[in-house]
Formats: sequence, C-alpha cells, structure tokens
Amino acid sequence: MTLLDRFLAGDRLALARMISHVEDRLPRYHEALARIFARGRGAYRVGLTGPPGAGKSSLVNRLAHKLATDGLSVGVIAVDPTSPFTGGAVLGDRVRMQALYGLPNVFVRSMATRGSPGGLAAATKDVSVLLEGFGFDIILVETVGVGQVELDVAAVCDTVVVVFVPESGDSIQAMKSGLMEIADVFCINKADRPGAERVEAELQSVLDVRRDVHRPRSGAEDAPVWEPLVVPTVAIHDTGIDALWEAARRHQEFHNASDPNGHRRQRARSDLMLSLSELVRTRLENEVFDSGVLDRAVEEILDGKADPYTLAQELFGRWRTGG
Amino acid sequence: MTLLDRFLAGDRLALARMISHVEDRLPRYHEALARIFARGRGAYRVGLTGPPGAGKSSLVNRLAHKLATDGLSVGVIAVDPTSPFTGGAVLGDRVRMQALYGLPNVFVRSMATRGSPGGLAAATKDVSVLLEGFGFDIILVETVGVGQVELDVAAVCDTVVVVFVPESGDSIQAMKSGLMEIADVFCINKADRPGAERVEAELQSVLDVRRDVHRPRSGAEDAPVWEPLVVPTVAIHDTGIDALWEAARRHQEFHNASDPNGHRRQRARSDLMLSLSELVRTRLENEVFDSGVLDRAVEEILDGKADPYTLAQELFGRWRTGG
Repeated sequence: MTLLDRFLAGDRLALARMISHVEDRLPRYHEALARIFARGRGAYRVGLTGPPGAGKSSLVNRLAHKLATDGLSVGVIAVDPTSPFTGGAVLGDRVRMQALYGLPNVFVRSMATRGSPGGLAAATKDVSVLLEGFGFDIILVETVGVGQVELDVAAVCDTVVVVFVPESGDSIQAMKSGLMEIADVFCINKADRPGAERVEAELQSVLDVRRDVHRPRSGAEDAPVWEPLVVPTVAIHDTGIDALWEAARRHQEFHNASDPNGHRRQRARSDLMLSLSELVRTRLENEVFDSGVLDRAVEEILDGKADPYTLAQELFGRWRTGG
Repeated sequence: MTLLDRFLAGDRLALARMISHVEDRLPRYHEALARIFARGRGAYRVGLTGPPGAGKSSLVNRLAHKLATDGLSVGVIAVDPTSPFTGGAVLGDRVRMQALYGLPNVFVRSMATRGSPGGLAAATKDVSVLLEGFGFDIILVETVGVGQVELDVAAVCDTVVVVFVPESGDSIQAMKSGLMEIADVFCINKADRPGAERVEAELQSVLDVRRDVHRPRSGAEDAPVWEPLVVPTVAIHDTGIDALWEAARRHQEFHNASDPNGHRRQRARSDLMLSLSELVRTRLENEVFDSGVLDRAVEEILDGKADPYTLAQELFGRWRTGG
C-alpha cells in the first residue's frame, strides 16, 4: 500500500507524512497533490492573523474546541514566518496548542519558513489541499502578522480574521491598506482590558471612512460590498467565540450568495500562481543555483570579466531555452 | 544628457531618480545597473538589524554623523519589510532620520516592500550598487528584524550588526541559528537601562557555546574563525558609537586578511542569484500572470477539467519553451 493509498484510506499518520513530503518538496509531490486536489470537497478556510501577543493561538484553540463539539472536523495550520527574535513567544504558543492534540476530529500542524518566505504561502495552500482531501470540514490557518507573508497566507483563505488587542490603538491608525483589504472580520481579543471600547471605536471609524470611499456612485449597479464586522472576545475565558464564528460564517454566506464564482475564481487564480511560482523557484534552484554554471559565472564576476546583471540575463536565456 | 550621464557626472537628483527606476524595475534598468556596477569601487556595506524599538535608526543616525565628520561619504538605506501592524513606529523612525538629510556627504533612502518580499533583498543590493557607483565610501543598511527578509538583506552586507536592548533577554535564548550565523557584531543598545549586563552575559554564553561547537578539531588546519564582538551603546547619548564602528572595522579587516577571495566570491554568488531570481519573477509575472494564458487555465480549474498542480507543470513547460 503506497503512502497515497493509506492517505486516501483515512490514515492520520499517512496524512502527517504526506504533509512532510509536500513541505519538503519531495519528488513527485505534485502528482500526489493533483490526485488529492480532485478529491477535495472544498473545506471552509478561515485565516487568523494579527500582531504577536494578540492571543491568536488561544482563539484558534477555542474555535477548534467549539467546532469539534459541534461535530465538525477541524484542521489547524499554525504558520510561523516570524523572526528569530520572537521565537520564544511562538514556542510558548505551540505549547498552548497542545491542548488540541488529544481531540479525535482535530488535527494540528505547525509550519515554519524553510528556505524562502515565498514558499510558505504555497506550502500553506498545499497543506490546506491535503487537509481538504483528507476530509476536514474546516481549516483554521493562524499566522503571526509580519509583513508580506501574512498577506500571502491570508490570500489562501476564504475568510480572514484580523486580531487586535486593546493596546493596538496606534497600530489601527497606522494600519496600511493591504491589511485593511484582506480583513473580513476584526476581532478585538482580551476585550476585558482597558481600552477595548476605544480600539473598537477607532476601528469602526476607520471602517466608516473606508465605506464612504468605496461607496458605489449613485446609479451604479455594483455588486454588494462586504462590510467587515468587529467582534470583541476574551479567548482565555471562552467569551465571544460563538459570535466570532458567527461573524465568519456570515462573511462566507455573503460571498456564497453575492458572487460565488468570483470568489472561486480568485482562489483558483491564486492557487495556480502560487503553484507555478513554487515550481519555477524549485527548478531554478536545482538547475542553476546548485550547478557548475553558477560557479563559473561567479568566477567571471571575480575576474572582472562580467557584471551580475548581464550574466543574469545570459543565464536566464540559457536556462529557459536549454536547461 | 541622459539620466545615466547625469548620474555618472555626480548629480544627486539623478541618483535619486535612478534609484526609483531600479526600485520600479523600469525597462532597461539592467543595462544602467551593469554600467554602474563596473564603476563601483566596492564600498564597505554594514547592515544593522534587530527587533522593533531597539534603536537601530538612532544608531545609524549617529554612525552616519560620525563617519561624515571623519570625512567619509555615507549612503543610508532604511529597509522596511515590516507588517502593517508596526507601521506607526517605523514612520517615527523615518522622522528621526530627517536629521541626516542636511549633511552634504550623507544620502538617505527609505525602501519598503513593493509587491513580493523576495524582491526587497534584490532591490537593496541594487541600490547599494548604485550608491557604490555614485562614489559613497560606506553604505549603512538598516532592516527591521522580521523573518527571512532580514536574513536576505543582511546577506548583501559585508558586516552585519545585530542590535539588542536590555529587555531582549528572552529573545537571546530563543535566537535561532539563522540570525546567529549572520551576526558579526552584537550591539546592546540602551545599555544604560537595567538588565544590560545580564543580556551581555547571556549573549556571551551563547557565543561561548557556539565557539566550542565550531572549534576546529585538534590538528585541523582550518581558516581562522571570526568570533562576534559584543558592544554596548547608548545611541541617544552618542555613547559607544566609536567602539561599535571599531568592532565593525575589525570584522572587515579580519575578512580582508584571512580570506578576501572567499568573501568576494560569496557576495558575487548572492548578487548573481538575487539578480537572476528577480529577473525570473518579473518575466513570469509579465508573460504568464498578466496574460490570457492564466485566465484560460483558471477557467479550466473552475470547470473541474484540471487541477492547479498539473496546470502549473503545463504552464511552466510552455512558458519555458516558447513564452
């Protein structure tokens, strides 16, 4: 029985090993993914992102418990693209996530950057495909909010929850549009702390400004626009978790009702671009970076015979036409 | 007179515009870079990285002042790959950097992620090449410490200073090897705060462990290994800046004395890989992502006729052989 057979038969160990294969980009991982993709029933993917210390792991933990109690199976992907500087905190998060490991219909997987950060979003998407093909109903993707990676990872989800805490006031004012664009639901966690109302009001005023800017001009028959919801929670006291999930589901239903094809099209497009980028990167590494061709070009630069810009053009031309 | 001519004649406005051209990847930016690369005398590139709030901008500010006073010309590149969440703090940093703008032999440029984070290291390297070709003696590259980007950016520098503060104790224990490997000098800034000695001791013990692990086996005739220096500073009081620079220069001299070709080779290799990756990414975007080919493939996925993994292989094959 092959690994794929065991995976398709519902063997959890095979799932874990298949994930490792995909993360490590072992030979023929594409073929397995292609077969598993065809089986996927389209799980509902919810991404949670936010600054370190916002309590994302606790939220994911509570959400997974709630969903499992409701009879749903849940795959959790905890993505860690963070700096070495914050390693300690994230490690602590992982320990807290242990609480989920015992549940029979919950599967938890941590992923870290291996090599390039560009590969992390692709790997997250691929692991989601594996979890979907394995039969999970819901996939929760947790990402620490750092730079482009969080935006990329969020792009592979159906609904994105951006988590703030009462202390995040300044960050909300400074929030760049990239994050604003991806947020479908805002969660203010640790909402029993001072400042929660102020942060909620600030968020709401940012959302109001945004709604005015994006308001369809009179007479225009534009598609209805989703207006992000703001939900306060206290994850460690299990407060607001139902409301948070309800907000996420309302976003999903809105999309399903208003423009189901647009959403599916966008996801298919980003899936394809991620897969192609990843393929190109892998091939370039194997065929040029790890080859004598690069060594010889480097010597030309050292000898002053060529510059890296002209050489890059030449190497690209040769790689593309002949390998 | 072309922009390149004006650049080569020492026109600062032409430098600023050339940087924008390179950042925006305008047509033929490769040709300009190739010509300017050939003129570069190899400035000394020092990277400073560390967690938000460590005072990197103040350090860079003081270093630039010191070097300018010593009669050296200094190009500063402030790289900002950070999350939307920390936008506010970084904006404040930029305001503080204004103090440098008036100095005649100092040039400051801020860079942010445009599009993919992978492009940021390449752009930083290219802007360094422009500054070198323009004639700057020293290039200071400041990066906020977030994920892989800081490692990539650091890789384009000759000497890397990792900045901590007395509050960083836990981070030092959790510091991953990637950061440890790139650090040539450790700076403990805000060293007048409580805990500075403890952090210095912790760092030193980490370095001791590392030295024991890497110690050449008896009898082995390995090249001498650089042992990172630890320098306390209080940037806002201009304390320790000379010592920090001295430590960086000692690292540079060590490399020049022990293995000058090895260092140059490593830089040429990473320059070439960055240029090639950037070229491939740009071509893939223009020729596939922004084309009808991708649209048609997306429809095939939506119609259930194909999966993104198989399609990615097909698109790659077609792109590579024909465009």
